[in-house]
Amino acid sequence: MTSKGKVCLAYSGGLDTSCILKWLLEQRYEVVCFLANVGQEEDWDQVRAKAASIGASKMVIKDLRREFVEELCFRAIQCNAQYEGRYLLGTSLARPVIARAQMQVATQEGCQYVSHGCTGKGNDQVRFELAFLTISPSIKIIAPWRMPEFFERFQGRNDLLDYAAATGIPVTSTKAKPYSMDDNLAHCSYESGQLEDPSQPPPNDMWTRTDDPMTAPDTPQDVTIQFEKGIPVKVKSEGREFTDSLELFIALNAIGKTHGIGRIDIVENRFVGIKSRGCYDSPAMTILRLAHLDIEGLVMDGRVRSLRDQFVTHSWSEILYNGMYFSPEREFIENSLVFSQKRVNGEVRLRCYRGNCYVLGRSSETEKLYSEEESSMDSLVDFSPVDTTGFININSIRLKKYGLQKLEEGNGIGQS
Amino acid sequence: MTSKGKVCLAYSGGLDTSCILKWLLEQRYEVVCFLANVGQEEDWDQVRAKAASIGASKMVIKDLRREFVEELCFRAIQCNAQYEGRYLLGTSLARPVIARAQMQVATQEGCQYVSHGCTGKGNDQVRFELAFLTISPSIKIIAPWRMPEFFERFQGRNDLLDYAAATGIPVTSTKAKPYSMDDNLAHCSYESGQLEDPSQPPPNDMWTRTDDPMTAPDTPQDVTIQFEKGIPVKVKSEGREFTDSLELFIALNAIGKTHGIGRIDIVENRFVGIKSRGCYDSPAMTILRLAHLDIEGLVMDGRVRSLRDQFVTHSWSEILYNGMYFSPEREFIENSLVFSQKRVNGEVRLRCYRGNCYVLGRSSETEKLYSEEESSMDSLVDFSPVDTTGFININSIRLKKYGLQKLEEGNGIGQS
Amino acid sequence: MTSKGKVCLAYSGGLDTSCILKWLLEQRYEVVCFLANVGQEEDWDQVRAKAASIGASKMVIKDLRREFVEELCFRAIQCNAQYEGRYLLGTSLARPVIARAQMQVATQEGCQYVSHGCTGKGNDQVRFELAFLTISPSIKIIAPWRMPEFFERFQGRNDLLDYAAATGIPVTSTKAKPYSMDDNLAHCSYESGQLEDPSQPPPNDMWTRTDDPMTAPDTPQDVTIQFEKGIPVKVKSEGREFTDSLELFIALNAIGKTHGIGRIDIVENRFVGIKSRGCYDSPAMTILRLAHLDIEGLVMDGRVRSLRDQFVTHSWSEILYNGMYFSPEREFIENSLVFSQKRVNGEVRLRCYRGNCYVLGRSSETEKLYSEEESSMDSLVDFSPVDTTGFININSIRLKKYGLQKLEEGNGIGQS
Amino acid sequence: MTSKGKVCLAYSGGLDTSCILKWLLEQRYEVVCFLANVGQEEDWDQVRAKAASIGASKMVIKDLRREFVEELCFRAIQCNAQYEGRYLLGTSLARPVIARAQMQVATQEGCQYVSHGCTGKGNDQVRFELAFLTISPSIKIIAPWRMPEFFERFQGRNDLLDYAAATGIPVTSTKAKPYSMDDNLAHCSYESGQLEDPSQPPPNDMWTRTDDPMTAPDTPQDVTIQFEKGIPVKVKSEGREFTDSLELFIALNAIGKTHGIGRIDIVENRFVGIKSRGCYDSPAMTILRLAHLDIEGLVMDGRVRSLRDQFVTHSWSEILYNGMYFSPEREFIENSLVFSQKRVNGEVRLRCYRGNCYVLGRSSETEKLYSEEESSMDSLVDFSPVDTTGFININSIRLKKYGLQKLEEGNGIGQS
Repeated sequence: MTSKGKVCLAYSGGLDTSCILKWLLEQRYEVVCFLANVGQEEDWDQVRAKAASIGASKMVIKDLRREFVEELCFRAIQCNAQYEGRYLLGTSLARPVIARAQMQVATQEGCQYVSHGCTGKGNDQVRFELAFLTISPSIKIIAPWRMPEFFERFQGRNDLLDYAAATGIPVTSTKAKPYSMDDNLAHCSYESGQLEDPSQPPPNDMWTRTDDPMTAPDTPQDVTIQFEKGIPVKVKSEGREFTDSLELFIALNAIGKTHGIGRIDIVENRFVGIKSRGCYDSPAMTILRLAHLDIEGLVMDGRVRSLRDQFVTHSWSEILYNGMYFSPEREFIENSLVFSQKRVNGEVRLRCYRGNCYVLGRSSETEKLYSEEESSMDSLVDFSPVDTTGFININSIRLKKYGLQKLEEGNGIGQS
Repeated sequence: MTSKGKVCLAYSGGLDTSCILKWLLEQRYEVVCFLANVGQEEDWDQVRAKAASIGASKMVIKDLRREFVEELCFRAIQCNAQYEGRYLLGTSLARPVIARAQMQVATQEGCQYVSHGCTGKGNDQVRFELAFLTISPSIKIIAPWRMPEFFERFQGRNDLLDYAAATGIPVTSTKAKPYSMDDNLAHCSYESGQLEDPSQPPPNDMWTRTDDPMTAPDTPQDVTIQFEKGIPVKVKSEGREFTDSLELFIALNAIGKTHGIGRIDIVENRFVGIKSRGCYDSPAMTILRLAHLDIEGLVMDGRVRSLRDQFVTHSWSEILYNGMYFSPEREFIENSLVFSQKRVNGEVRLRCYRGNCYVLGRSSETEKLYSEEESSMDSLVDFSPVDTTGFININSIRLKKYGLQKLEEGNGIGQS
Repeated sequence: MTSKGKVCLAYSGGLDTSCILKWLLEQRYEVVCFLANVGQEEDWDQVRAKAASIGASKMVIKDLRREFVEELCFRAIQCNAQYEGRYLLGTSLARPVIARAQMQVATQEGCQYVSHGCTGKGNDQVRFELAFLTISPSIKIIAPWRMPEFFERFQGRNDLLDYAAATGIPVTSTKAKPYSMDDNLAHCSYESGQLEDPSQPPPNDMWTRTDDPMTAPDTPQDVTIQFEKGIPVKVKSEGREFTDSLELFIALNAIGKTHGIGRIDIVENRFVGIKSRGCYDSPAMTILRLAHLDIEGLVMDGRVRSLRDQFVTHSWSEILYNGMYFSPEREFIENSLVFSQKRVNGEVRLRCYRGNCYVLGRSSETEKLYSEEESSMDSLVDFSPVDTTGFININSIRLKKYGLQKLEEGNGIGQS
Repeated sequence: MTSKGKVCLAYSGGLDTSCILKWLLEQRYEVVCFLANVGQEEDWDQVRAKAASIGASKMVIKDLRREFVEELCFRAIQCNAQYEGRYLLGTSLARPVIARAQMQVATQEGCQYVSHGCTGKGNDQVRFELAFLTISPSIKIIAPWRMPEFFERFQGRNDLLDYAAATGIPVTSTKAKPYSMDDNLAHCSYESGQLEDPSQPPPNDMWTRTDDPMTAPDTPQDVTIQFEKGIPVKVKSEGREFTDSLELFIALNAIGKTHGIGRIDIVENRFVGIKSRGCYDSPAMTILRLAHLDIEGLVMDGRVRSLRDQFVTHSWSEILYNGMYFSPEREFIENSLVFSQKRVNGEVRLRCYRGNCYVLGRSSETEKLYSEEESSMDSLVDFSPVDTTGFININSIRLKKYGLQKLEEGNGIGQS
């Protein structure tokens, strides 16, 4: 019985991808398993052993934490990225580095196929597959949850458990979580299951990356974050100092966890047009985003900021959410983004306390767009108040005509 | 000695505008004083008496609280308005209603002039004067702080105190606040003085509209806010219920105050091109904005939301900040804004606790864009997973070419 | 043999839809044929007879010309709509009215299905089907050119000719056009076939809605177009006058045809991600768009225009091109568009000559944003030149800092 | 009598700047005259002699044609720049290079002041002065037409003629042009005077850079333009070939002139809020813009194009028009612009004929985004039509809900 070819499967060790692994083998594919370390909690050896026991030819685990933080998370921070005014994109940020690494493994191992366990209604399938196809346009994709022969056979968790029992797949717990989770350094996401009722709060014990703000320490913790070109290069808090990207990110996650910073609970619009409810806790990203917004206030030109907010921030966030990180439009707008960050240098002091983060102050040794002298209402050094009269008068030329039109229309704007 | 004409002066009762009132009288103007009640703390009778004692012909005080909340604050909420990603525009929102009322008084009293005590480097002069000139294009404006004969004579607080002493203006305190404040229902703002050093936190006792989150009650308070067409129509909390616009807004301010919600501290870009540091506490606006963002997630179409965010929210906020509320462009974009809110109906439950506000859940009796069935990853009712394959493949057509270009350029995106 | 149900087929009388009609009947569907009159050249009786002869239960022909012009073409003119800076959207504009009428027929005739002869790679299938599904979310669509049982059977024109011969479908010409055409009042489009080589010009005899500019009359023709609220309400030329929407549109088409106005030849980006070459001649739309752009110069506020161009014009054009006319986002932005046109009143005189249209002058009896007095460089009535100094100085505050940064970076912008 | 300092005056040799030169000398300034050669018609020696005869210390003439074309005009072409949908920005493009060169001269000559003869209501004063102040924040500007002591003394042309006669300034013609002109390689502009009546066409003999389309040759002329990275690098026509930037630009101007290409007549919105009527003829820019738009159709990704159009093209044009070429926001967006042009390589063949320019075809040896195979409606190589079904269905998920809302509201979109 000849093999149909070689598949590189994104394998997590869970029930779904274990069954998919088995099923692929049954379909006469040779399977190389791949698992990315993007900072999630995991017993790596156990996953490796399980893959082997089911029949994978190989299991490749790659530590992508540094590239995830440096390439994706920090770019999101430079961008103040946020989807629909709330979501910090934690899952969207991880997908590109994972997909890229999986394609590298697929190439190295000579696989003609890649496969994954994403469901057919979500964003992740789109993100992974667009990345796969962009990186390697001729790759073939096996998405079992969109193949009738698979999804009609396995119509629920019980079918998978039965299959596992029948084929000897080890199952650690037969009890499913009442929701699904996706964990990485940027956040943990929670969706589906009992969370599908958006009128009900999530269970208190759900959150993994943040402690409960209500039981968080009553003593605040101050943190100083230093930025160079919009990228955090140093974090100081309580006598400790971190300058390595990965270490400082992990340190901020720990601080944010302790103080319960970065929980959100939203209903969002998936790329495929379905609304879904998601909960996310993103401690480091929340703290960094606030600090970055703040330092930009001190050192970034106002017009650049306005254009960056309206075009780059909005578009970049949507592009990432929709799984188009590897796209010409993302590269296009990033050229301007990177320029906008050239002078984003300075440090921000923050206070973390019970679910919140407050700016205490900000300063920059190199940047001089802010000037106390100039800002001061009392000082007239280098400033002629008469100029403002001209400024107002010129700006009013156009507006006066609008006022006259309104009067003429009989509904002058003077009436309230 | 004939009068030069009649001036309607925005009069607060403070040292600055008291001296301006006196000075205008000295210049042989007749002066009608005007003071708007936009919810600030004030001893109205005392202001009235002081104006009379200095020599005003008349003092008109108008209660603009309802129109301020209903016309401006609620529009800002429908818009999720925010300037530079942080500032909720409290001062900018009050200016249009104040300017409009002052122009009404000026017209009723037959004034040829309007005057105010705004400084020459700030946003407020621009906001007031653009509004004045738009409402009444032929009005003449006296802005003493931009007139050399005034600002050269009164170069500091001491000159004003001397003048007050010399001319018999009653002065309650000779000690200035170490910063300036502007209070209204939407917020209190704090700037200038010691706040001009952006590296230093504001004094703890500065905030007036919010209690300290660190000493806020340890018991959270839940609030339910109901929206119709994007406007809050009912607020419920701890057995009390408010349906009147002004009352519910005041109630939310009280709740937010108790729990320390809505403080920000930023460096912002003024319209005149100067950076300045401002602190703002906006309890009701902060709670309402979060609730509105949240209900929109449940009931607003995703593409409309994206376009509204990028164009309306961004532009409306900038237009308001820059003092162009009375402008054709604001009216232009509001037509789409109002349409976008037609189906923003539903309620949001929130938990207020120590400086923060958390969404507990949201629901809508009338809107059905969210569907648990549809959202569920497990259900395939009305959904064919095979469609997603087509969706991804069509979306990849363009992206594959980008991938091929990259390969051709020798830096395939597969390399990390 | 029971029927599978009733289909409303978009039927043109051509080879493709005739074969589809026959094929649907063979598949045991009952078929009601529908043909929209959007101003194309057609022998309506012949189409009707042909449908009957092949076996359609009914043939419904609807004259949609007026709603096409008034609802779609005029809205596009108000918008200055243009896709990718060139294409006036003729086909995209017709699709919504056709789809809507076809769904009405489908409903009236009790059809469970709608069908069309669009190919599987084009824009039109998307436009029609999104409209069908939006108007009637439960409608079922039969798209033969995307069904393997159809497209594998009919792999080219010869297969269709064989089928026609075998099933007795009358065929007027066995010789195909070397490209495909779609004609309506807004334009005629030409694509496919020999046009697929974008380096070669289209054949001289291809264009149907415009005469050759090189052999157009050597005498120019002047036209006056009057707008109310951005809509053309009167067209005058050479002593004739048209005030009916449809008549004036047809008249402009005739004038534009004679003078060879409105040909374009482009490579465009289809919604499905494929580039394609299209040629279009749109005489009336080209003339009206120019006239409308011009009158807006005279009567529209500059900031509204800028926002409208960036937001409404760009988005509306893309929405229409992508087949999302029936969408909340189109309705959303049209609310602002309609507002922007409230004062677009006035008339434009144009000269048509050999492929071009020149503005001779414009005027408005009601609108007064333009003022000769004010515009004049020589007049200082109501204008204080000193104000401009203030305007420039205030605008320079921010820019001077940029200049200083550049000097500091060692590449002062003074160096060329 | 000591000098007040040294002024670098933008001197054209005309009546206005000759009087300003004399007046500055009378005010006891030392004056260095500066004239930029940006391709206008000029008797350079005569200007030089006149400056000397009036009393200038020095007259510096700089040939800026190459930097004007390469830095500004070609960037505008890469951008498809256009203000308010019509104007190709000829004057705006020249100002930055002129201002930069004038500041260089001012620096080299040790001038504390710069001066110019721009009027107080126009765009040019803003463009020049913002550039001066950005390049050299401490420069002092003398703008006589905004100084009461000047503009009150010289209230019209006759006052200037009297002054010239009285002070011995040679005047070539006492008869003024009935409009003012500004000529450079990019265009000639015509405004003011008799053009201030926007309802009347300009005089036939006004245009200098284009011959009358009605008397243009009856024989068309074909031109081939080759682009590299969005920049024209080769122009071929009638056996001649140009590869030097300046030469090819001049050649296109000559071709466009002969065939009457590039005239526009508009009412535009000046930065200062005044509407004004302007006529412009821009032969080379018009031809290049069309060719560039066309080649982008063939080789640029559709999403990049859409974002570039909405963000870069719109903003860049407005920034340039408003005189903010030297600004962080222009530099910001140009980073993305330059990226977008990396693959804009290919050639376009055009036919010039009587006021118009038609694309005959386009091709690229290196770029492959367009594929005849893929574009072809008949070919199914590498394309599965079934995918489009999925694409449409997924896109319809959101739209169906809109349709249902409309039905529920009682005004289903099925009704026309």
